[in-house]
Amino acid sequence: MSSAPPAGPTPSGSNLIGVVGGGQLGRMLALAGIPLGFRFRFLEPASGCPACDLGEVIRADYHDAEALAAFGRGLLVVTYEFENVPAAALETLAAGVPVFPPPASLAIGQDRLREKEAFARLGIPTAEFRAVDDRLGLDAAIQAIGLPAVLKTRQLGYDGKGQRVLREPSEVGPAWEAMRGVPLLLEAFVKFRRELSVVCVRGAQGGVVHYPLGENVHQDGILRTTRAPAAGVSDRMKKDAEAIGTALLKDFGHVGVLAVELFDAEAGFLANEIAPRVHNSGHWTQDGAVTSQFENHIRAITGLPLGSPEVRGWSVMVNLVGDAPDPARIVGVPGAHLHLYGKKPRPGRKIGHVNLVAPSPEGLEMRLALLGEVLPLDRA
Amino acid sequence: MSSAPPAGPTPSGSNLIGVVGGGQLGRMLALAGIPLGFRFRFLEPASGCPACDLGEVIRADYHDAEALAAFGRGLLVVTYEFENVPAAALETLAAGVPVFPPPASLAIGQDRLREKEAFARLGIPTAEFRAVDDRLGLDAAIQAIGLPAVLKTRQLGYDGKGQRVLREPSEVGPAWEAMRGVPLLLEAFVKFRRELSVVCVRGAQGGVVHYPLGENVHQDGILRTTRAPAAGVSDRMKKDAEAIGTALLKDFGHVGVLAVELFDAEAGFLANEIAPRVHNSGHWTQDGAVTSQFENHIRAITGLPLGSPEVRGWSVMVNLVGDAPDPARIVGVPGAHLHLYGKKPRPGRKIGHVNLVAPSPEGLEMRLALLGEVLPLDRA
Repeated sequence: MSSAPPAGPTPSGSNLIGVVGGGQLGRMLALAGIPLGFRFRFLEPASGCPACDLGEVIRADYHDAEALAAFGRGLLVVTYEFENVPAAALETLAAGVPVFPPPASLAIGQDRLREKEAFARLGIPTAEFRAVDDRLGLDAAIQAIGLPAVLKTRQLGYDGKGQRVLREPSEVGPAWEAMRGVPLLLEAFVKFRRELSVVCVRGAQGGVVHYPLGENVHQDGILRTTRAPAAGVSDRMKKDAEAIGTALLKDFGHVGVLAVELFDAEAGFLANEIAPRVHNSGHWTQDGAVTSQFENHIRAITGLPLGSPEVRGWSVMVNLVGDAPDPARIVGVPGAHLHLYGKKPRPGRKIGHVNLVAPSPEGLEMRLALLGEVLPLDRA
Repeated sequence: MSSAPPAGPTPSGSNLIGVVGGGQLGRMLALAGIPLGFRFRFLEPASGCPACDLGEVIRADYHDAEALAAFGRGLLVVTYEFENVPAAALETLAAGVPVFPPPASLAIGQDRLREKEAFARLGIPTAEFRAVDDRLGLDAAIQAIGLPAVLKTRQLGYDGKGQRVLREPSEVGPAWEAMRGVPLLLEAFVKFRRELSVVCVRGAQGGVVHYPLGENVHQDGILRTTRAPAAGVSDRMKKDAEAIGTALLKDFGHVGVLAVELFDAEAGFLANEIAPRVHNSGHWTQDGAVTSQFENHIRAITGLPLGSPEVRGWSVMVNLVGDAPDPARIVGVPGAHLHLYGKKPRPGRKIGHVNLVAPSPEGLEMRLALLGEVLPLDRA
């Protein structure tokens, strides 16, 4: 199964979608795309990956030229399910088959400095920032931005990895020693009420839809819950968030889903990060929206019309981190929809999520109380 | 992929569900069960089956003893996705692994005479019927029931296959010559306003849920559309239908989904047929109910609590028979959800369905008008 070779060249009119990466996002893309008549091929170095049961798997390193060629053969389109895809791999693929989202979106999404520069270029408010290339640069950045500030790696950061908060001058030296050697970025430490995110989609013909804003709660740098639609979102906030999403989608020539994390601060939104792909903060759409982010991503990259992002009730998405309680207890909660990823439990590892949906905000609170008897929900 | 051998014995605590048959029902069971953390193995003689991309496939005849043994090895539970499974195959499997629904349900569901006898035994109204074993028996049955009547094969009938309406005495001889040689059944030709169906589920712990009644429209013996919830269903009708479903579920010791087709006749419901499995008239639940019939079947056979059968709006399911219009046109209709089966188009073949959902009956009519521009919907 999981290491079957590709079936050989597919005639044009292929219905085969290639996904770089075979993790849970690939799994959920396939679950959404198969009913639309598509088939899937994954490029994934690890065995037993979450997507491995849902299509062909080319089990190889992303840098393996021969595997890349085999992977790309006969595909309708290539997409990817995480940011840390080697850009060179996508460029190789893009020579033979359409790659959506375009590699340009990825190049920006995988580099926090380029993200910030894109925000600045498009007039999107963001925390003050400076590139840090050496120790002198760090000192200059602290001089300009002040403390507290956040020192981040420019690349390969996710789920809170690759960042340190600097509160006192005494913390600067140790942080530098721990993080030096890779390109860095210093950002002002921003005070914000909460983190919201806007998940938006641009179709191949340029149409754009936005899902209602979700409110995200993190713990230990990992997303724990998203509530959608977020409470207390004014028309103005909705417009601002959608304008930010649309500006980025258009600027990148993006096709597919793009998520933007926004700090809800005193003076308005500050854009924090983008993800040029389906995003954890959009998982609630599987059960809480007319069309899920996964289906809309597939629709976008295959040239189908986008589906409605309207909500179907009020939702909370709760990540299952580390281990999962008895599935019977979870699905016994009214309105709870379980999504497991087929991953072995391990501390700090996302192994699934629960989408809890109710027809009213009050109903959702009642159901959350029941789910809280099953799952740790301290901050939901 | 599609003919990979089984991975060998699975330790107890297996999450592997075996499905006899790899058609579209198996495909949709897997799509619903994978997010719950289950994996699938199919026993299917044909290559390139609709379920083949969604798990291991043992490609073999249902009578192949060695293949049956390999199929059953290490499974959590076995289920089946059509009635015409050889009973002997299930009995062989049941010696080593739980089989749900129980073979008793199947034995009744695959024989129209036993169905009728079960209805009669449980006091469930049905059309008058007589077993027909020979030509004399046919004449006696016509004598008792009168014409018009319907001559049916007892077994292997579906989608209108294996039945003939006898209106005139002159039609009796030719029908007998065409159908003789297999066990037959004569039924009174019943006048009814419409066909409704109740899809119900019984969990492993004995709990029962019923989906709202759907109204089915057939053409050329093939189900074309189901509307749910059906219009004009009184509380009394709802109670009667649910009582029929519950009586059958309990009598059979059924675990899983069971569908009952009901004629809505002058004097009340007449039970027509049962399907001891997920059923085409329940496909609307994928997008129009809180929990789909597929997920509830998986929950039932794996001992999980059943999910809510509540509707999420008003639905019409439209089968795609023979060929499918451009998917882009279908998914461009607001509220349309496309479910293709990965089957090659062929006249009279069900290759997929569309679930059209709207938040109100009026909204559904508007959307149906739009879908009608894309699909033939003469009788929806």
